[in-house]
Parts: sequence; C-alpha cells; structure tokens
Amino acid sequence: MRTFSLVFILGAAIVCSSQTQRPLALMPAPAQMQSGSGQLIIDPSFTIAMSGKGDGRLERALERFAGQLRAETGMLPINIKMVGTESANLVVHADRASKEIPELGEAESYTLEITPSGAKLTAPTTLGAMHGLQTFLQLVESTPSGFAVPAVSMQDKPRFPWRGLMIDVGRHFIPLDVLKRNIDGMAAVKLNVFHWHLSENQGFRMESQKFSKLHEMGSDGFYYTQAEARDLIAYAAERGIRVVPEFDMPGHSTAWFLGYPELASGPGPYQIERQWGVFDPAMDPTRESTYKFIDSFIEEMAELFPDHYFHIGGDEVNGKEWDANKKVQEFKREHHLKTNEELQAYFSGHIQKLVSKHGKITVGWDEILQPDVPKNIVIQSWRGQTSLAKAAQGGYSGLLSSGYYLDLAWSAASHYAVDPMTGPAADLTGEERKLVLGGEACMWSEFVSPENIDSRIWPRAAAIAERLWSPQEVTDVNSMYARMEATSRRLDGLGLTHHSSYDDMLRRIAGSDDIAALRTLADVAEPVKDYARSELAPGPATSLTPLNRLVDAVRPESMTARDFDNLVSAFASGNLAPGTEPEIRALLTRWRNNQTDIEAAAGRSFLMKEVVPLSQSLSVLGTAGLEALDFLDRGNGAPQDWKTQQLALIEQAKKPQAQLLLRVAPSVQKLVEAAANQTVNAHLQ
Amino acid sequence: MRTFSLVFILGAAIVCSSQTQRPLALMPAPAQMQSGSGQLIIDPSFTIAMSGKGDGRLERALERFAGQLRAETGMLPINIKMVGTESANLVVHADRASKEIPELGEAESYTLEITPSGAKLTAPTTLGAMHGLQTFLQLVESTPSGFAVPAVSMQDKPRFPWRGLMIDVGRHFIPLDVLKRNIDGMAAVKLNVFHWHLSENQGFRMESQKFSKLHEMGSDGFYYTQAEARDLIAYAAERGIRVVPEFDMPGHSTAWFLGYPELASGPGPYQIERQWGVFDPAMDPTRESTYKFIDSFIEEMAELFPDHYFHIGGDEVNGKEWDANKKVQEFKREHHLKTNEELQAYFSGHIQKLVSKHGKITVGWDEILQPDVPKNIVIQSWRGQTSLAKAAQGGYSGLLSSGYYLDLAWSAASHYAVDPMTGPAADLTGEERKLVLGGEACMWSEFVSPENIDSRIWPRAAAIAERLWSPQEVTDVNSMYARMEATSRRLDGLGLTHHSSYDDMLRRIAGSDDIAALRTLADVAEPVKDYARSELAPGPATSLTPLNRLVDAVRPESMTARDFDNLVSAFASGNLAPGTEPEIRALLTRWRNNQTDIEAAAGRSFLMKEVVPLSQSLSVLGTAGLEALDFLDRGNGAPQDWKTQQLALIEQAKKPQAQLLLRVAPSVQKLVEAAANQTVNAHLQ
Repeated sequence: MRTFSLVFILGAAIVCSSQTQRPLALMPAPAQMQSGSGQLIIDPSFTIAMSGKGDGRLERALERFAGQLRAETGMLPINIKMVGTESANLVVHADRASKEIPELGEAESYTLEITPSGAKLTAPTTLGAMHGLQTFLQLVESTPSGFAVPAVSMQDKPRFPWRGLMIDVGRHFIPLDVLKRNIDGMAAVKLNVFHWHLSENQGFRMESQKFSKLHEMGSDGFYYTQAEARDLIAYAAERGIRVVPEFDMPGHSTAWFLGYPELASGPGPYQIERQWGVFDPAMDPTRESTYKFIDSFIEEMAELFPDHYFHIGGDEVNGKEWDANKKVQEFKREHHLKTNEELQAYFSGHIQKLVSKHGKITVGWDEILQPDVPKNIVIQSWRGQTSLAKAAQGGYSGLLSSGYYLDLAWSAASHYAVDPMTGPAADLTGEERKLVLGGEACMWSEFVSPENIDSRIWPRAAAIAERLWSPQEVTDVNSMYARMEATSRRLDGLGLTHHSSYDDMLRRIAGSDDIAALRTLADVAEPVKDYARSELAPGPATSLTPLNRLVDAVRPESMTARDFDNLVSAFASGNLAPGTEPEIRALLTRWRNNQTDIEAAAGRSFLMKEVVPLSQSLSVLGTAGLEALDFLDRGNGAPQDWKTQQLALIEQAKKPQAQLLLRVAPSVQKLVEAAANQTVNAHLQ
Repeated sequence: MRTFSLVFILGAAIVCSSQTQRPLALMPAPAQMQSGSGQLIIDPSFTIAMSGKGDGRLERALERFAGQLRAETGMLPINIKMVGTESANLVVHADRASKEIPELGEAESYTLEITPSGAKLTAPTTLGAMHGLQTFLQLVESTPSGFAVPAVSMQDKPRFPWRGLMIDVGRHFIPLDVLKRNIDGMAAVKLNVFHWHLSENQGFRMESQKFSKLHEMGSDGFYYTQAEARDLIAYAAERGIRVVPEFDMPGHSTAWFLGYPELASGPGPYQIERQWGVFDPAMDPTRESTYKFIDSFIEEMAELFPDHYFHIGGDEVNGKEWDANKKVQEFKREHHLKTNEELQAYFSGHIQKLVSKHGKITVGWDEILQPDVPKNIVIQSWRGQTSLAKAAQGGYSGLLSSGYYLDLAWSAASHYAVDPMTGPAADLTGEERKLVLGGEACMWSEFVSPENIDSRIWPRAAAIAERLWSPQEVTDVNSMYARMEATSRRLDGLGLTHHSSYDDMLRRIAGSDDIAALRTLADVAEPVKDYARSELAPGPATSLTPLNRLVDAVRPESMTARDFDNLVSAFASGNLAPGTEPEIRALLTRWRNNQTDIEAAAGRSFLMKEVVPLSQSLSVLGTAGLEALDFLDRGNGAPQDWKTQQLALIEQAKKPQAQLLLRVAPSVQKLVEAAANQTVNAHLQ
C-alpha cells in the first residue's frame, strides 16, 4: 500500500527527504512531485531492467547510469546489474525511440514512481527516459540504513523545448574533451542544445575540406577536425543533446580572411586578432563571389552538422570597412540601401536563402531581425528582452540569451531572476508566446581557458537550466542556492573541474602546496563584473596572455560571501540563531589576520604580487567588522567620526584591485552602520 | 659563461633551487647533478625544438611535454610552441630512435644542461630523451621572476633496467582508463615495465578468440578486448613502457575452469571465486590435452603481446586437488615425482618450453625456481630476498618484489629501505649481480577498486621507483619524503586521483559535504598492515563487497601522523623549534574535540557508524597528550598511576578498530612517557 502526500516543489518550499530531512538536491526542480513514505535501498544487489521500445541509446544510457550509480555509492563494477524486468529494482520503460539525432520539440516528459519495493520510470520516448535517469541519480543519498532514494511520485516535463549552452571556442580554443565533460554536465541538468560558436576574429576552429585555408591559416593550428566534430555530435546525441554550429558573418570574421582575403571588404592583409573587442573587418556583401563561397561552405557544413538549425551570427558589425570601401558605397546607392544596417540585412537575407537551400533553418543574433526578413528564422536575443518580444510579435521564433551571459560574472540569483516570459514578453498573446522557444546560457571566452572554463559555466548554468525547464513559479532563491550547491558537487564528480581545479590554480599562484591563506582570500573575492575586466586590464590583455592569475581562479560568485551576508543580515534583522555572532567574529578575525601569511608567501611567486594589496583590504574589512561588533557588544553607539572613517575605508576596499572585488565589503558596511546606529543592539546577548 | 658547482644529490642532502631555496622535487633522484647559477624563464613565448634522429614517438612526447608545461604554468594551448632548433629555448636531441616496442636493456640515459639562456637535453635514444623530459617538468617552479627551471647540469641513467609496477586486475577489475593514468604516473617516475596480472581465481580478464569461454564465463563480463589490450600496449610503448602479461598457472586459475573444466584436476563444477585466499583448484598437469590447450592459448597471447617476456605465474599451489585425484597420484608415481613441488616443476618445465616455442622468455614467481629448470627464465621473488640471491647464484635472472607489495599498507620508508642488492644479495659476485634485473612494485587487488587504487599505488610507488633508478647511495629518508610529497601532488595533476578522490570518498561516508571532522580523523588513520585486513574482516569480505568504508578511503601512510611524530620527537630530543609546543597542542586539542562533531554526523549515514569508536579513541589520545603537555609545562613529573592509566588507554587505542590504526598513538605514548620521566622538562619554556 502506498500513500502519497503532495509536496510543494513549486514556490518557496524545499522538498526534504522523509528519512534524513535533508533537502532533495533536484535541479532543475520537477514540474510535479508528491512524496511517499519510506525509501528504496540501493545496495550491491540492485538491478535495473529496460522495457518497452527504447533503443540502443537507452541501453547505453542505462549502462552509464549504472556506472554513475556505482560511482556515487562506491560500489564495484560488478555491483548493480542489468537483468530482466521481472526481478529488477528499477524498471525503465520508453514507449518509443526518439529520433537518432535529437530534434526540437520531441517529447521529453517522464514519470518516476519510487516505493520501498521498487522504482518505475516511464516515458513516451528515449529522451524522456534519459531525463528521468538523471533525476533518479539526483535522489540518491546516504541514509542510516544505507544508500537509498526516497519514495516519490513525479510527473516531469520541460517548460521550454530549447535549453541551450553556447561555448565560444573562437577567442580561446577549448579542446574536445573539455566540451565533452560540459556536455555531460548539460545532460545532468537537462539542457538539450549545445551551441558551438566556431568562428571569431581570433580563430576559425572547424576544419573545412573545401576551403582548407580557413582552419589552416585562421586557427594557429587549434581547430577541430571533421572527424572530431562528428564524434562530438554523436556524443551529444547519445545524451539527448542537439549540436547547433555557428559561423559568425559578416562581422567577427577576421580569421576567415587570412586564407581568403577576397571575402573581406577591406584591402587586407589580415592577421589573427589578438585583442578583444569589436573590430572593423567584415565580409564584402557586394560581390557575387562572396555568396558563392558561402554557399559552398554552408553546403559542406550543413552536411557535417545534422541539426535542422544553423547559426549565422550576424552580430556587431561596426561598418567601418564598408564605409571605407568605395565599391561598397556605390553598391549601397545602387541598391537603395541607406544604412549599413540595411546593407547587413541585404547580406543576411542572402545568407538565409543559402541556409534554406541546404535544408536548414537560420538562427542569428538579434541584429538579423530587420524588416522583410522571412519568418522561418530564429532570433537569439542578446541585447535585451525587448528584441525577443519584438521578434515574437513579428511572428519570429526567439531564444533568450540576454541575462544569461556567464562571462559577465553575475550571481546565480541574477541569472535566475531572468525569465523569457517576463518584462517585455509578459504582454505577448498565447500564439506569440509559443514562438519563445527557450534560451541559452552563453560562455564567451575572452577570459576562459581549458582549465577555468568549467568554473565559469558551473554551477551557475544549472540555475539557468532550471529557469528553462521548471515551471515559471519556481523562483525561491534560497531553495535554488541550496540545491545548486549540492548539484555543483555532483557535477564536479561527473568529471567537470570547477571545484577540483580551484585548489590547483591556487597552488600554482602561491608557488606552494600551502594555500590556506590564499584560499581564505580567494574564497571571498570575485572577478569584476560585466565588461570591467577588459576595461581595467593593467596592460593589453590578449589571446596570448596566460589565464593563471587570481582573477582567473576565483569563482564568479563567492558562496562564502553569500553565506556571510546571510549571517550579517540575520544578525541585523534580529533573527539571531545561537552562535551567529561568534561565527561572524571568527570569519572577521581570520580575514584580519590573513595578511601576515599572505605577505610571508608573497615573495615566493610572481603571481602573488598583485594579491597583497587585495589582502590588505580584506584585513581592513576584518578590523572594521570586529570593531563594529565590539561597539555592538558594548551597546553604546559608535562615534560618528569612527563611522565616517570606516565607511571611507570600506569604500576603498570596494574598489577593484587586481580586477577582483571583495564581496564581503557590503556586509561589513552593514555591521559598521548597525554599530553606529545601534539598531541591532537589542538582539545581542 | 657558466659556472657549475657540484651538488650532493647523493646521500643526505636535499638539492635546493638557487633562486627559491626550495628543495628540487626530483624523483627519482638523478645519478649526477651539478647546480649552476641563475634560471631559465618559462613564459608564453617559450619554444621547443627537436634535433637528431628521434622518431615520431619523440615528437609526440614533445607535444605531450608542451601540454604538460602549459598545464603546470596555466599557459594556453597557443603558448609554448614547437619551432626550428636555431631559436628554441629547449632543444631535445636523440641520436637514434629506440625500438618501437621497448625492450629490456635499451639505453635510457640522458644529459640535461640548463642555463639562463637555454636548455639542451641530449640522449642516445628516444627512451633517454623521454626520461629527460620528465626530469625537466619536475624542475619547473614558480619564482619571483616568473615560472622557471634552475640552471643545472645533469647526467642521469638508471641503476636497474627492469623497473616495474604490477597491477592485479583479476581480483577486482580495473578499467582501461585507470590503467592508462597509472601508466602516465609510471612514466613520470621513470618506471618502465607494466606487469599486467590478467588471470586469477576471481576473474579471467583477457579476451581469448580461440577459447572465448575463458573471458565469457570467467569474468562476470568484466574483461579487456584484444583491441583494448593493443591500445594499452601502444599507449605504454609511446611512453617507453613495456607490457608483460601474466596468466597464472597452474594455481590461481579457478576462473579458467568455468568455461574449460577439463583443464582442472578436480571434478568441478567450478564457480568464480568470491572469497580471498589460496584455493584448491589447479590445472591437471597429467593430461596431454592440458598442454595442448595452453600451447594454443600461449600462441594466441604471444602474438597479442609483443614483449619478449611472458609471465606464467606459478605461485601458491596448495596441492589439495592433486592429492584428491587418483590419476594425478598415479602419474606422480609413474614419473617418480615425490612431492607436489616436483609435480609443479614438471608442469612448469612443460609450460616454459611452450613459452619458448612461441618465442618468449618465461617469467614466474619464485616457486618456479626448481632443480633442473633451464636458465633462460626470470625469477620474480616475492617470498623474500633469499630466493633472488639463490636464483642469481644458480645463474637465473631475477626481479625483486618481496618488500614492494603495495597492498600491505607499509610506509614509503619501509619500501625504500628494501634494496635488491642488500641482505642475501650483498654477497653475490659481479657476474651474479648482473642477473638482478631490478624489481617490481606489486598492487594485489583484494581491497582496491577503480576509485581507490591510485591511492594505494601512489605516491609510495615513487619511492620504489627511486630505489630502482637512483644510485644505491641515495638513501636519505627525509629527503625522499620531501620530494615524494611534491611528486605526489604533481602525479595527481597528471590525472591520477590519489589526492582528489580522498575528499570525495569522505563526503560519501559522511553523507554530507561537511567533512572537516571526518577528515581530521581520517588524516591520522591508516589501514591495518600486512594481511590483517582479511583476518580482521567483520563478516566475509568478498569480491562483491563495496569498497566505500573509511578503511578504503584513508591513505596507506598518514603524513599527518608522520609530521606529528617528527614534532614530538624533536620536542623529546630537545631540538625544539619555536612554536613546536603550541603546534603539538593545537593538534591534540583538535583530536580531543573532534568527537563531538563526529557523533553529531554519525546518525546521518550508515557508513559513519563504525567510525565513532575510532574517533572516541582519537579523543582519548588527544586528552592523554594534552595532560602530558600540562605535566611537562608544570615541570613536575606526572604520577606513576596516571602514567599507568594513560599507557593502558593508549594500548587500547593502538588496537585496530574498523580495520584501522590510529598512527599517532605511539607519538602520544612518547609524550606520556616523557611527562612521567620528565626527560624533556629542561627544554620547555
């Protein structure tokens, strides 16, 4: 007999395991879930079976699932076996096979029923069953009776059909194995589109057999062979993930012109761009030969990439080469194209026809949305949600990426708050709303290397994945963070390196295995936000500059700072748990005293030099916070001149140093202000 | 102008970098080295060239080397390039290519000259050049002026030509990728033979196309295909490592008999063995069909494995099946074989002829050394150094493995103290000494899984590697530990997981990400030694038992305990550095107080239950140590009954709990004895 009680996964509540009372680390949160009583034990005799019409892919997914289950529980290759359905502890059923190459809009739903006596995962398709397997893995926990999954009943399906991650491999080359582990991460959080940004001013990364000078001259030797591309596409398809290639045109295209300067609007010669920014080179939209080349190139790539969608970029053309080219000016006059935007629309219109000719649907950044563009394109909105709404109103499909740029070092909460259906999109009609296909997290790669890219993508991409999968009402930020932290650890266990590379990078910076002091500092630092890193660069940072500084190692969002701010806020609001003040005091003391160790280590390694002033600021913050606590403990208000002085110091400590921010500064400021105002005085023992 | 000063790498001294005064983490220590002045900077413009007649393998080794250099410095794929010899910062020269498949006795020497203006690595062969590249990588450090290698001049070559690591994949299956990362580790410390123990009572792990029931029925489905074997052999050969396969006969062979019971001396039927130990089943040495089968099998394997050596096992036959078989008894009488040892010698003699017939040289465990065995075999000594000496005196080549069993959880120092040329071998003549080819570290796999095998092999195998490579005079244990610790971190960075899996395993045991308390305990615990784990097993531990307990996670040798003992010994000997007592006190206090947190966590996860009593013992040790310090601080001797009571408690804490030992117990005992005797009183402030 099973009794289920409805569980509020939606909204504010964190769902807890009935056995351990720990929150279930489900991410993305499922559409619907009811918790049951008891749990299903997973021990060395656990067995799995497949029923229905699943394909070989589901069989292989089950093998990977069993391997993952073994890894999470520490069981052996011989433990956890595939058996017939009669005796299995977990039966996985798919009504039918999904398409071999995943397609937009295929069914992805599943239901999962777990009781103490067994589990049944049912889905209409392979894709849904694979999502359900990921959910099952997230439910595994260690309990007093052994490893187990709690009894639950779950009906889950995605909110949007297009849930993507874009990785820019143009600005910095990212090796295939790094992409593969990120695809594993995507599958774990139910993302289903890998958008492969393959060409940039700084590099053309895909082998072309027709135009071999593209990759030979445009990549410094760092490109993917077509065999590697096919390998990646197959790897992604195995995991239910589509691969959409992007070749950015007519701008962002300097790397094309090393081998084929005749494609460009300027006189050349061209070199691979080493700086960051928007550059002048652009394709020549006036020549028939340009379109002939692109026609032939798209033909080759359309064959290589099986997905129905093909991304042509189309962003950020500054028009300078066009303005400087008399033939282009003449062409504009002849064709009554008044602006460069109109000229680009003319170009994009031609490219779109070529894409159609080769059987694909065009995707482009929002600049390609121009009057008279045919409706069968997808607009990827990066400059704001307005263009997404505008596209939908105009009858165009759209994807949201504005608000999902991982390179801007925003908090997970900031990304999480961005919803494709709010803001300008809130007023769309029902039909228009259907045109919003979903969104994509974007990893632009000015400042990422194979070593630190995982820590720029994860775990924050999981928050975006939840936004795109879970019901719109799932918005509780504290619940998200709790689940994201647990998910983050699991993702690192899958082979991602966002946790594990952190200490390695700190050891290199310190030139030593003793990194306690450096980690104390790094744990509360974040890279500067938005585009400040380029703006604040001490010298000209280029694509040749090693990414081995502290700013490259620290996490985009400091969980220590977040936790500290929660402590301080609870303290200031009077919701004071026992032990809160000693905890705050211990952190502040550690920060104040940390400088001694940092200075001792500073002479050892050149990478430590820029760290010292930042550490000095943290020390100042520690001292200010401790003084504030002392005033608060004594219960008499701090003098005004002390406050003024401290706030000035804190203001100083808030300024970027070594392109880093001390994220605990605002929290210390709260303490200083509280000490001066004595508003929290009443809460202190 | 270069001036070199001789540096004492031999004997006691630790060689330090002239810039940073940190010890060079060279392991194994080179045969000869002189330090120069200054250093060679490694920055993003660093270039490498190859000269001489190196082969494609050396080119690929240089690519891997560049990748490794990039990884260690945090440089980018585009940094550090291959160029022509004129302009390169590092020129690597090999006079000639080594054999495509490495062979015993090939030249492995190299010289390395580093000055501030460039580096030159010269070797007679590819193998030597590859060793030199590993040495160069070990020299890279972060300095105040950037990443650099110190100026040195080095002439290096191995002491023994056979420096092996054996991995038993029979008792627990170890996947190919785990073997590969261990081969990377071997190359890093200049080991050159991977001995692949492929068949056991618990599993037959190699695909046989001629006798497919061997792997199909004898492996639970966990075996290597021949394609995988070829892949591994090629992978090893690329790194200068030979692969010697072992198929253990006539004992340790139950897994053969599931598919081919007619090979056995008993009536069968047979099942894959799940227990550990020595078992009765043995091949039937009386039947012609047995030899016909093995002839055909060796023919297949001799073709698959290109190495000239072929290991036939030959260890631990208990003779029970032979004693119980009337036909075998009759056969012994007919052939005048008095004992089972003589019967086994008869069998082994036949097998050796078959091995020779297929063009290979036989290797076997020391049991195969019997009167009248032909001289062209290699004896692998596991039961003691005596058999190695006896073999050499008898004109047989030999390998030492006695003293190098990694599964016995010895300290690195214990393995390091074992030298193939000491003890019974010390009296060998010059000619006899040449027959000692080297040795092999052995990883028997009763208690290792893919997850923890690296931590059982590394870093201790590096100490054995040094014993087999470096001059016999290199024996300073403190130097070895200092270099081993640095080497260990580098090995983990190569992809081995002995460091990185530790916290993962602790998190699983704790059922939580908060593992501070569990780590405090785990850091001072070691698995019980020698074969005590099997003897102390709470229930019947089998090959199906998950290896996820604390005993599976803790390191075979606790560095925390070693460091603590050094502190206590310095304290007791009067060599008291400032801060020593507070450091001892801080550790003891943490151990005493740790129990509270362990108990709080104990209810969460079933794997924590057995941890609690061990933690209680650590708490007792902390209290005892602190009391001892108090007596020492006060300067009046501790009462005799206190001492008696403490020693009784310590004796209790020394006993294995959960198959673990608290390695700090003897050090605490030293403190207690000192307090009672007040011998160190004078040294205290």
